[in-house]
Amino acid sequence: METVHTGERLARLRELMKQNKVDIYIVPSEDSHQSEYIAPTDARREFISGFSGSAGTAVVGLEKAALATDGRYFNQAGKQLDDNWTLLKQGLQDVPSWQEWAADQSEGGKVVGVDPTVITAPDARKLAEKIKKKGGADLKAVKDNLVDAVWGKDKPARPNEKVKVLSVDFAGKEFKTKLEDLRKDLDKRKNAGFVISMLDEVAWLFNLRGNDIPYNPVFFSYAVVTPTTATLYVDDSKLSAEVKSHLEDAVSIRPYGAIFEDIEAMSSSSAEGQEQDSSTAKKLKYLISTKASWALSKSLGGEDKVEEARSPIGDAKAIKNETELKGMRQCHIRDGAALSEYFAWLEDQLIAQSAKLDEVEAADKLEAIRSRHAHFVGLSFDTISSTGANAAVIHYKPERGNCATIDPKKIYLCDSGAQYLDGTTDTTRTLHFGDPTEIERKAYTLVLKGNIALEMAKFPKGTSGFALDTLARQFLWAEGLDYRHGTGHGVGSYLNVHEGPIGIGTRIQYSEVSLSVGNVISDEPGYYEDDNFGIRIENIIMVKEVKTNHKFGDKPYLGFEHATMVPMCRKLIDATLMTASEKEWLNKYHEEVLENTKGFFEKDERTMSWLKRECEAY
Amino acid sequence: METVHTGERLARLRELMKQNKVDIYIVPSEDSHQSEYIAPTDARREFISGFSGSAGTAVVGLEKAALATDGRYFNQAGKQLDDNWTLLKQGLQDVPSWQEWAADQSEGGKVVGVDPTVITAPDARKLAEKIKKKGGADLKAVKDNLVDAVWGKDKPARPNEKVKVLSVDFAGKEFKTKLEDLRKDLDKRKNAGFVISMLDEVAWLFNLRGNDIPYNPVFFSYAVVTPTTATLYVDDSKLSAEVKSHLEDAVSIRPYGAIFEDIEAMSSSSAEGQEQDSSTAKKLKYLISTKASWALSKSLGGEDKVEEARSPIGDAKAIKNETELKGMRQCHIRDGAALSEYFAWLEDQLIAQSAKLDEVEAADKLEAIRSRHAHFVGLSFDTISSTGANAAVIHYKPERGNCATIDPKKIYLCDSGAQYLDGTTDTTRTLHFGDPTEIERKAYTLVLKGNIALEMAKFPKGTSGFALDTLARQFLWAEGLDYRHGTGHGVGSYLNVHEGPIGIGTRIQYSEVSLSVGNVISDEPGYYEDDNFGIRIENIIMVKEVKTNHKFGDKPYLGFEHATMVPMCRKLIDATLMTASEKEWLNKYHEEVLENTKGFFEKDERTMSWLKRECEAY
Repeated sequence: METVHTGERLARLRELMKQNKVDIYIVPSEDSHQSEYIAPTDARREFISGFSGSAGTAVVGLEKAALATDGRYFNQAGKQLDDNWTLLKQGLQDVPSWQEWAADQSEGGKVVGVDPTVITAPDARKLAEKIKKKGGADLKAVKDNLVDAVWGKDKPARPNEKVKVLSVDFAGKEFKTKLEDLRKDLDKRKNAGFVISMLDEVAWLFNLRGNDIPYNPVFFSYAVVTPTTATLYVDDSKLSAEVKSHLEDAVSIRPYGAIFEDIEAMSSSSAEGQEQDSSTAKKLKYLISTKASWALSKSLGGEDKVEEARSPIGDAKAIKNETELKGMRQCHIRDGAALSEYFAWLEDQLIAQSAKLDEVEAADKLEAIRSRHAHFVGLSFDTISSTGANAAVIHYKPERGNCATIDPKKIYLCDSGAQYLDGTTDTTRTLHFGDPTEIERKAYTLVLKGNIALEMAKFPKGTSGFALDTLARQFLWAEGLDYRHGTGHGVGSYLNVHEGPIGIGTRIQYSEVSLSVGNVISDEPGYYEDDNFGIRIENIIMVKEVKTNHKFGDKPYLGFEHATMVPMCRKLIDATLMTASEKEWLNKYHEEVLENTKGFFEKDERTMSWLKRECEAY
Repeated sequence: METVHTGERLARLRELMKQNKVDIYIVPSEDSHQSEYIAPTDARREFISGFSGSAGTAVVGLEKAALATDGRYFNQAGKQLDDNWTLLKQGLQDVPSWQEWAADQSEGGKVVGVDPTVITAPDARKLAEKIKKKGGADLKAVKDNLVDAVWGKDKPARPNEKVKVLSVDFAGKEFKTKLEDLRKDLDKRKNAGFVISMLDEVAWLFNLRGNDIPYNPVFFSYAVVTPTTATLYVDDSKLSAEVKSHLEDAVSIRPYGAIFEDIEAMSSSSAEGQEQDSSTAKKLKYLISTKASWALSKSLGGEDKVEEARSPIGDAKAIKNETELKGMRQCHIRDGAALSEYFAWLEDQLIAQSAKLDEVEAADKLEAIRSRHAHFVGLSFDTISSTGANAAVIHYKPERGNCATIDPKKIYLCDSGAQYLDGTTDTTRTLHFGDPTEIERKAYTLVLKGNIALEMAKFPKGTSGFALDTLARQFLWAEGLDYRHGTGHGVGSYLNVHEGPIGIGTRIQYSEVSLSVGNVISDEPGYYEDDNFGIRIENIIMVKEVKTNHKFGDKPYLGFEHATMVPMCRKLIDATLMTASEKEWLNKYHEEVLENTKGFFEKDERTMSWLKRECEAY
């Protein structure tokens, strides 16, 4: 991972800032849809700062510049940022948030600017407040993106991939039924309509998938749903006859770029209606999600004219239907088989064949194995194939031709997943091919205990992922250990591998949504020792109702079912640290893994014997 | 617990509501200081509804009336409310909050009224929003309290007890140092001053104690602290020469009732300053706590003119100094000795003497024993002395002369505490004098496991009580059991037995404050079976830094030290459900209890033998 020299880019940006009368310029990592993964054309924060991690914000002043990112990326950002940048380690004591840092810089009447399409309306509002509080002038919406202007002709073009229909055999519900459900919801909320800005929400609602963003089967679009209309904003050139016939007369098509003028017109026509009949004022407000851009909110008439709420589509999407849950189980069996085949191959290569393999070569093999499985579409994110100290870089991305050779004497961490037509996978396994150290085995076992404790948890309906997070950390904490990332993220159904609104972790928003039957979420505690090794164990688990001996308060009690089907690493488990019930869980899990995946290996002795060895009972 | 007939009162209130052009009238349970425990003169919600629990809100419409309370009181409220009232069980699915209920009633342009001195500014704001959203007219601040008008001459007078100085030998810090610290804090926040509205904050700040509210050693007062002044608003008749000399020239005294006009004047004089120099606008804002009344906020010029924040005094007060911690340990040893003496006596009475004792007679004995101990001032709350099914009423208060006889064949739950000059105690023990049922033993042991798990927890600095709550519930949840109350509340130092801002539980505000070294908090999981039995085990625990084998992230790791010194109930423990480390904890705890309290019983064979029996190792 190399340091990127940003001096020249920054100089040009500062020139443009002065022309636009902006003293501090914010460059978030998101695109206009608040996508976590973005198309290369939207990678403005990476371009200006050099930092290539998936999360972070650049704040550029006329003299200083700062890059804020979270614990997953402290290590990586430290390597990539040049001397122009101050790294703001978010979450550490006494380190300001990027908002605080920007506000501090604004003291004395300075102007902070941002492209209003790449910041949410609530975030813009909060930032503006902080700026005013510190004595800054204001937050200014700068219409043209200044980083794009610096980037110029080198900036990649916006992708224009074809959109495809996802059969109801995989989606489990017709899009017209989803539209009906949404309209019922909007009627209850007394909203005039919903302006949908998140790409995975549009894709989910219409049972469509795309290919505009790497790993995320989404396409650039917006949508507006009212009681009587549904409009999809997507460029016509992306739509096949099949897609048009799928949408039929239920959905109107408008160009992607037409959204802003259309909603501006929509909003002013409802404002007229509002004047005529003030008692229905409330009914005339459009709903936007709290993730909608400031630009969208402004086009609709601003804060007072729209209702902001957690997206009802996000909530509905997070509760998978029976077809989606079945797909999730099935794709994880195929994906688990692929991973076992890969790990068996890798061990054979490294140990029996003494082969020299680098991290990317190994990941390529894994992708090749996966791609032979049914319904495979592609990977769901860049495979993290990391040896030794690289495993401590939480979201490590090995560079082709310039990455480490896998050292069989060190820990190997593999976090990978794929998109299948019937579901999205995401699995992390940490392996050792030789003799792990005592602390490696201890840390692995503590992480495993946390992983198991979370999966074994039973809890009343209404419990949030915030409340469960501690279960996964408790054994590490008791030893003074911890990990600087969340414990679980929602997973899409042949959609984004990270999806809201649920999550398990210490982020406050996870306390706002309780876990529900049908939620699919990851369970991935870890432990990382910088410059030494990293451990993470990740299973995808699905919320279900569980039987309990009693039932207090007539509430359903919930628990988890695992989807992931890959053995844990025998060499790294210190069974003396495990309780009887943990070992019982582990034995039962390994039995299931073996039972569900062995059918793939009837003619593959290498994988079969690896799998049987790893799945042996304790 | 009898049903209270409220028809006549409600009729008179509704008459007054019509005169004041109010369609819905809100009667919170708090006084003008947001006190949880209130003086009889402020018990307006109890007067109008008949419900005598400590928490709840009455919402009276012209035709309907509702009383909202939380899980601790569902049982009690059901008994006390007459047919005029709908009980809103807060926290249950599909039950509206009282705010939602009030807003629903306001539909169609109705006016909701409230006395602005008994609702906080943020609560009033949120309620007003909800009302407008539902199509109600507005929230109206009704200057004279309408319930007081109904109450008339039967309303008790406001207490006027003497204020006393708390020696620095108990407080641990001179009040002038506390003032200095506060001023430093205000300077950092760039506030013009702090208008202090909570009674325990005033008492803590000036090292004064009072006796205006039962069980809470506070006195009716406000205070205003600026960089150069400190004004205490308290009626002069309450102040002795000693208090005046203690306050010296550092504090000005003004009458209690003068606060509103004074701050109105203060606020308009700073507004003038503001016009002259807009760059220092921020410096001129007064700080009020988020618990300050709407009336205070209005007097200061309203929302835009004040800064609302969690009280810096509340935060400082929650972190006990070494003297306070030492006092907390010492008073809990004396209090523990009193409880053991009481339980030994009670067992002897019920079993050996076959005495008939009712719940209040028993509680009287406990108070008598406590009152013989050093530094005793009084009880810290109404003793919950409850037999059998009464133990399921979470905040049960036995009525003198009209309560149950203690049944030695049933569970007996005793939740009690006292005020000592060196600290405040709060202990719950659940006992059985005969043969407990299987479910009673199982439930007791699950509750005990949760109590121990919380106390044994180690966690990195920055962890909140919200995140730890699950540890106390996990064993109950696994069996489909739970309890409808928080797990822990902050405890004052010879101050209120419930104090913020920390807490352990599922209330979202507990996620906003992390636990810090010096916090004193209760650990009190429970289990309740309506009409059958109740279990609660409560220890007071104190946050301290702990040693761990590792120290990830250079953060201190924290844990707990117990203050409470009373044995657990041997008959109710099913040791087969406990792990080796839980039994080890229990044995060590009992050793400590015996060691620390046996000195009190050298001449008291009954207690000594009871104590030794209960403290025997497993």
